[in-house]
Amino acid sequence: MSRRVQVVENILSANDHLAAANRARLDADAVLGLNLMASPGAGKTALIERTVPGLEGRLRLAVVDGDVATSIDADRAAAAGAVAVQVNTGGQCHMDAVMLGGALDELDLGEVELLIVENVGNLICPASFDLGTHRNVLIASVPEGDDKPYKYPTMYRGVDALVINKVDLMPYVEFDMDYFVRGVQLLNPGLTTFPLSCRTGEGVDAWLDWVAAQAEAQRDAAAGAAASTSPSGA
Amino acid sequence: MSRRVQVVENILSANDHLAAANRARLDADAVLGLNLMASPGAGKTALIERTVPGLEGRLRLAVVDGDVATSIDADRAAAAGAVAVQVNTGGQCHMDAVMLGGALDELDLGEVELLIVENVGNLICPASFDLGTHRNVLIASVPEGDDKPYKYPTMYRGVDALVINKVDLMPYVEFDMDYFVRGVQLLNPGLTTFPLSCRTGEGVDAWLDWVAAQAEAQRDAAAGAAASTSPSGA
Repeated sequence: MSRRVQVVENILSANDHLAAANRARLDADAVLGLNLMASPGAGKTALIERTVPGLEGRLRLAVVDGDVATSIDADRAAAAGAVAVQVNTGGQCHMDAVMLGGALDELDLGEVELLIVENVGNLICPASFDLGTHRNVLIASVPEGDDKPYKYPTMYRGVDALVINKVDLMPYVEFDMDYFVRGVQLLNPGLTTFPLSCRTGEGVDAWLDWVAAQAEAQRDAAAGAAASTSPSGA
Repeated sequence: MSRRVQVVENILSANDHLAAANRARLDADAVLGLNLMASPGAGKTALIERTVPGLEGRLRLAVVDGDVATSIDADRAAAAGAVAVQVNTGGQCHMDAVMLGGALDELDLGEVELLIVENVGNLICPASFDLGTHRNVLIASVPEGDDKPYKYPTMYRGVDALVINKVDLMPYVEFDMDYFVRGVQLLNPGLTTFPLSCRTGEGVDAWLDWVAAQAEAQRDAAAGAAASTSPSGA
């Protein structure tokens, strides 16, 4: 078994190097990278379908869709108006930095301010692989049930923001929001949270404002870095 | 990469050997093993909560609950009246045959006729690991969306029955049943399917009857095998 562990560690370490390279490419063009993670069917693509038109005129946006099979999600993102690249993982349960690097080759990053990476639908594997994005966002959904933070703690611990989708279904399912939020706060105190419904549009504006603010912070950071390394800014 | 592939193949092959050993243990006591798989929150535990009282007096039942963390599911299965063993996978995204073997050690299989294994919530990884159970059952759920067969083909191809849970939410979400079923039939023609709602109880009886019939077939097969190997039955 020790040989297996070592191989896995080498793979993770190689991934981290490639993730750092992806991050440097995004930083060079002041692109904010968001890594969207969720269970299958929690609403990653639906959130993208709200985010693309919602940020039109504010941010130039591209989407990378990771899936085990099909290009359904990239087709939906493109139909919503985004530049979209599909990555098929060939059975793998998560995206990795190599896959994202390949997708970045397909994009003109100089024309992009926000890159949304839609990871494979899975609450376990994607949590272990840095892609080189700047923010990890988890989408939970009400019909999944209120025990998910307790059952998938690694995922909930590692994210920078949490979307709680399908709040319009609250009247029709048993979901104890207090119990859910208590679990979240235990693992990730003070986590920024957006209860919303991609179906009705309720709560989406707060999410859009947060994304826009993150992209602005990324642009400011990139401008600061450029100023401190250029002779005129010294 | 070839070394990694070889290691993974060795792990899978070791797993298959242990799965065969688990199956032999179940067969020796004429226990039917069901492997329940689904996304997080599709309703595996809820179906168990319906199945345990629903089969009371018809079948003696035990549950093995696989989770990344917590014993919430085994607690719920036990509260519903089942003998329940919790397996924590320590971060792994699926159960494997070693884990099930360890759980079988905790059970008196002579007192069990139906063993339900609740796998880790995941539509990808569990599909690759035989546990030694006799039937693979997938639980889909209406709010997950109608595109899941197309996006997770390996899982849909490898199952013996499909439960479509949360049909009571059909009026509140967009779910095209024809499109969903077309995808299922493409991958797994003639698949036995149970549309139901664990919340309302609608459709649960047909599921219970199917499970009971599978367990009876397993008992008959075990009796046949015993007769053909014993001198008196020759």
